Amino acid sequence: MSTITTVGVDADDTLWHCESLFRLSHARFLDLLSEHGDPEKIEAQLLAVEKRNLRVYGYGAKGFTLSMIETALEVTDGAVDTRVIREILAVGREMLTEPIEPLPGVENALSALSDRYRLILITKGDLLHQEQKLASSGLGDYFVAVEIVSEKDADTYRRVFDRYGTGAEQAVMAGNSMRSDILPALEAGCWGALIPYPLVWSHEAAEAPVGHPRYVELASIGELPAWVEGISR
Amino acid sequence: MSTITTVGVDADDTLWHCESLFRLSHARFLDLLSEHGDPEKIEAQLLAVEKRNLRVYGYGAKGFTLSMIETALEVTDGAVDTRVIREILAVGREMLTEPIEPLPGVENALSALSDRYRLILITKGDLLHQEQKLASSGLGDYFVAVEIVSEKDADTYRRVFDRYGTGAEQAVMAGNSMRSDILPALEAGCWGALIPYPLVWSHEAAEAPVGHPRYVELASIGELPAWVEGISR
Repeated sequence: MSTITTVGVDADDTLWHCESLFRLSHARFLDLLSEHGDPEKIEAQLLAVEKRNLRVYGYGAKGFTLSMIETALEVTDGAVDTRVIREILAVGREMLTEPIEPLPGVENALSALSDRYRLILITKGDLLHQEQKLASSGLGDYFVAVEIVSEKDADTYRRVFDRYGTGAEQAVMAGNSMRSDILPALEAGCWGALIPYPLVWSHEAAEAPVGHPRYVELASIGELPAWVEGISR
Repeated sequence: MSTITTVGVDADDTLWHCESLFRLSHARFLDLLSEHGDPEKIEAQLLAVEKRNLRVYGYGAKGFTLSMIETALEVTDGAVDTRVIREILAVGREMLTEPIEPLPGVENALSALSDRYRLILITKGDLLHQEQKLASSGLGDYFVAVEIVSEKDADTYRRVFDRYGTGAEQAVMAGNSMRSDILPALEAGCWGALIPYPLVWSHEAAEAPVGHPRYVELASIGELPAWVEGISR
């Protein structure tokens, strides 16, 4: 019995652009430090600092801004001009205040899904910033619940779909990250629909569960309502 | 009919020290900038920058760290030594990794309350950091739910006590902040128990609702179980 009652949807890079803003901020950061060495080495150092700090800062633009400042100090051995630090703060603030536009097809898909299923937004990142992005996107009314979590693992999906739905077995999780949206959701007993985004943060990459009976890769979010309909029968 | 079923409890400065760590970080910050002017003026500037950034950064140690860096650049007109920036990053990281000890009386009070009522932790701040503090405190098992929110207003309390309890009218909210824990909870229809902490962040100060029939100020969290018991009859 596989009647679907509930659909969980990721936010960043599923409903709106996010990684592209991080890449743009990376590029601006490298530009600011262009006098201080090989951009590839500086970029590698930034990724290493981000990864090292993830345990303490978690996901989101504030921690990323702190990691950019730390990297600027490290790669210049403290010789960075303080105007660069000021610019990094501005880059971070712009990430936090950027207006949010839904990706193509998102509104139609959410509208169709919300007519038949309980829609839940499940996302990582800074609490306040994710709430502000949802408000700015105008998509808030499609969701019966919004869960902003510090990590997406199988327990997260079990807990959320127990609380707001009828359990993981009757839920679909849809998103762009194999590592965060799909694999732990499948482990929890959900169905998983990967909706690829052209850019993937290296931290989120993982092998596809090819052949898994509850997994599908869709070309776009526009295909999600019909696929959910198909497995609900 | 006022039978209490649910007790909401604030975390920072109610279950463990927090403002004292912020004050200590302020002091270290002023010390780092002692060559650059009058400490009182620098402190006033830091408070102004924090307040200005609250809308974008929200509550918590990461936003506070970014505000310290911004203030250091502003008050020195960019002439701050980058070693100071590095130190500010270290101060912020220490705030995020400090081990958490429950305040005196907290464990006994939570243990007594959790025998008879649904206990819910309701707190502002960085999502990951608040989860880590709760884990570090060893108090997690007393709570049936943990809500980390970006702002505490009357709607927040209505929503949380509807979801996890039997509505605001049958709930107590206990905490140290008049502005965040008591006034909006009373507005939502809850009972409110102020448990003062010796230090109050200026942002959280507000007038006491003297004479309000559902409000009490307690001397310590140790008095909370008996007070809840009294109003439950």
